[in-house]
Amino acid sequence: GALALPSSSLAQRLSRLPYAILGGLVLIKNPHLDTMEEDILYHLDLGTRTHNLPAMFGDIKFVCVGGSPNRMKAFAQFMHKELGLEGSGEDLADICAGTDRYAMYRTGPVLSISHGMGIPSISIMLHELIKLLHHAKCRDVTIIRIGTSGGLGIEAGSVVITDTAVDASFQPRFEQVVLGDVVVRSTDLDRDLAEELLACSKEVPDFPTLIGHTMCTYDFYEGQGRLDGALCSFSSEKKLEYLKRAHEAGVRNIEMESTAFAAMCGLCGLKAAVVCVALLDRLEGDQIRAPREVLREYQQRPQRLIAAFIRRRLGLHPPAGPALPSSN
Amino acid sequence: GALALPSSSLAQRLSRLPYAILGGLVLIKNPHLDTMEEDILYHLDLGTRTHNLPAMFGDIKFVCVGGSPNRMKAFAQFMHKELGLEGSGEDLADICAGTDRYAMYRTGPVLSISHGMGIPSISIMLHELIKLLHHAKCRDVTIIRIGTSGGLGIEAGSVVITDTAVDASFQPRFEQVVLGDVVVRSTDLDRDLAEELLACSKEVPDFPTLIGHTMCTYDFYEGQGRLDGALCSFSSEKKLEYLKRAHEAGVRNIEMESTAFAAMCGLCGLKAAVVCVALLDRLEGDQIRAPREVLREYQQRPQRLIAAFIRRRLGLHPPAGPALPSSN
Repeated sequence: GALALPSSSLAQRLSRLPYAILGGLVLIKNPHLDTMEEDILYHLDLGTRTHNLPAMFGDIKFVCVGGSPNRMKAFAQFMHKELGLEGSGEDLADICAGTDRYAMYRTGPVLSISHGMGIPSISIMLHELIKLLHHAKCRDVTIIRIGTSGGLGIEAGSVVITDTAVDASFQPRFEQVVLGDVVVRSTDLDRDLAEELLACSKEVPDFPTLIGHTMCTYDFYEGQGRLDGALCSFSSEKKLEYLKRAHEAGVRNIEMESTAFAAMCGLCGLKAAVVCVALLDRLEGDQIRAPREVLREYQQRPQRLIAAFIRRRLGLHPPAGPALPSSN
Repeated sequence: GALALPSSSLAQRLSRLPYAILGGLVLIKNPHLDTMEEDILYHLDLGTRTHNLPAMFGDIKFVCVGGSPNRMKAFAQFMHKELGLEGSGEDLADICAGTDRYAMYRTGPVLSISHGMGIPSISIMLHELIKLLHHAKCRDVTIIRIGTSGGLGIEAGSVVITDTAVDASFQPRFEQVVLGDVVVRSTDLDRDLAEELLACSKEVPDFPTLIGHTMCTYDFYEGQGRLDGALCSFSSEKKLEYLKRAHEAGVRNIEMESTAFAAMCGLCGLKAAVVCVALLDRLEGDQIRAPREVLREYQQRPQRLIAAFIRRRLGLHPPAGPALPSSN
């Protein structure tokens, strides 16, 4: 009868409920998961039997993800200081030290994880991260990708908050292959969160921040219309025509993860945002020529914006307030 | 007139010539490249102005690529010993130390590079690697991906030499999006090289080696029919039906880079092979449950096979011969 539903059906029913009723829990849209005695999160080198995930992660409220492991370590150290936590943060340990696929750091309620480059790489990480948040019984988690991108008609160093992630045809969709068939998914991101982030950008006024569409491609060279790859079959004119069409469609930057990130987070009930700095303006060139020092400062910009956002959410208005007790 | 062709047309004409006439040079199918004063290989942290690429890489004959940076470092150290070169090889430096996107090591005529996970990640690396080999004027380079995979109807620990890389519909093709349009490319690999590798496998007889099709997907979970991701909309029966169809089509293992690798290397005239160990048999499960020690030994198997191949090519039949002079 209806009262004797197996737990897998319960998961299916829960996944159809609106977000608020679930009290901010992460939605796992997989009825098989509850039947597993153990879940090995292989690429994170974590598991439900080998680790006490609720104790390790249960109080996480902010998850920040980005491509580069060094950058995500630097972000965790930076957040440690911004939260006013004790110690320098220099000694934060890589929670995924047993594998070199991804790196993960935590400080206070903030988890910082690398995802490598491209949709397949971020997709593996997100499957395992979302299961981790589920196993850990995390609530009301906000997840933000802080990345690098190519700008479109905007000044190098500008920070773009994504309102809509679009594919290479400028459509707000993500095509996922499931058992050989294509399933089309929505790439909606949280509008209120994007607006809240834009409001926070007033607190870091030394660089331009804007809201716009972000185009996500499967390739950095041919897929983004670059003339400087090992393969290039099109003219400079065709390239500019494509990039200008993208700009007219509202695209302000181009990267390689946002559609899959938006689709997966949306399906799992995570409030998600994408905040990327533009390393160059693609209407002016293809090669990333700025000196390493300049690029390093550019890459800190999304981190500074997200730090201002997290401080504001925690009631730590700038400048950083007194030390918070570590939640570890 | 015909004698005053610009260099871009020369590149186009050269790219249509058969492989042998070019004396084994790498083919750059991009007429724009010759017009650039400088080429910054951004994700490798190398460039034509900042580095003497012919001096650094001109004598490279074997390029081995794999997902994990630690594994590719271990492979370079292992090759160093297998080639009988002086020193322990423990101190090989990461040539791409200025970036954490990829790691690169060289020993003798062997270059070992990580490519991360998934087609977009390997594609960025291959664009820049192929340009590097071109700028360095390398000749007669053999490139081999040594990776991990899920097996299909084969024993865990088996090594699969790919004859054909196929997509999620079991077709030997790679779909590349160029300026928003899909271009279909062939995924042929070098048949003679695959047979030569199979012959070499007789020298490492303590594990099974076979030739078969390799299926390449954009996703580790839903795309490979796993029941243990954060999202899963299909039944165990549908999963097995799909995997069995793949097996009947000749697929013996599943990974996430081979079609793009085969397509790009093929277009650029590089003789290429894919050699992956199976970490499990996907007809029997989804989770990678073997102990880390067992998995580590599995991952050494493709490395041992490729070491035997390179030794044979260099006339260093087993056991490893006397010390070769370092080419550095």
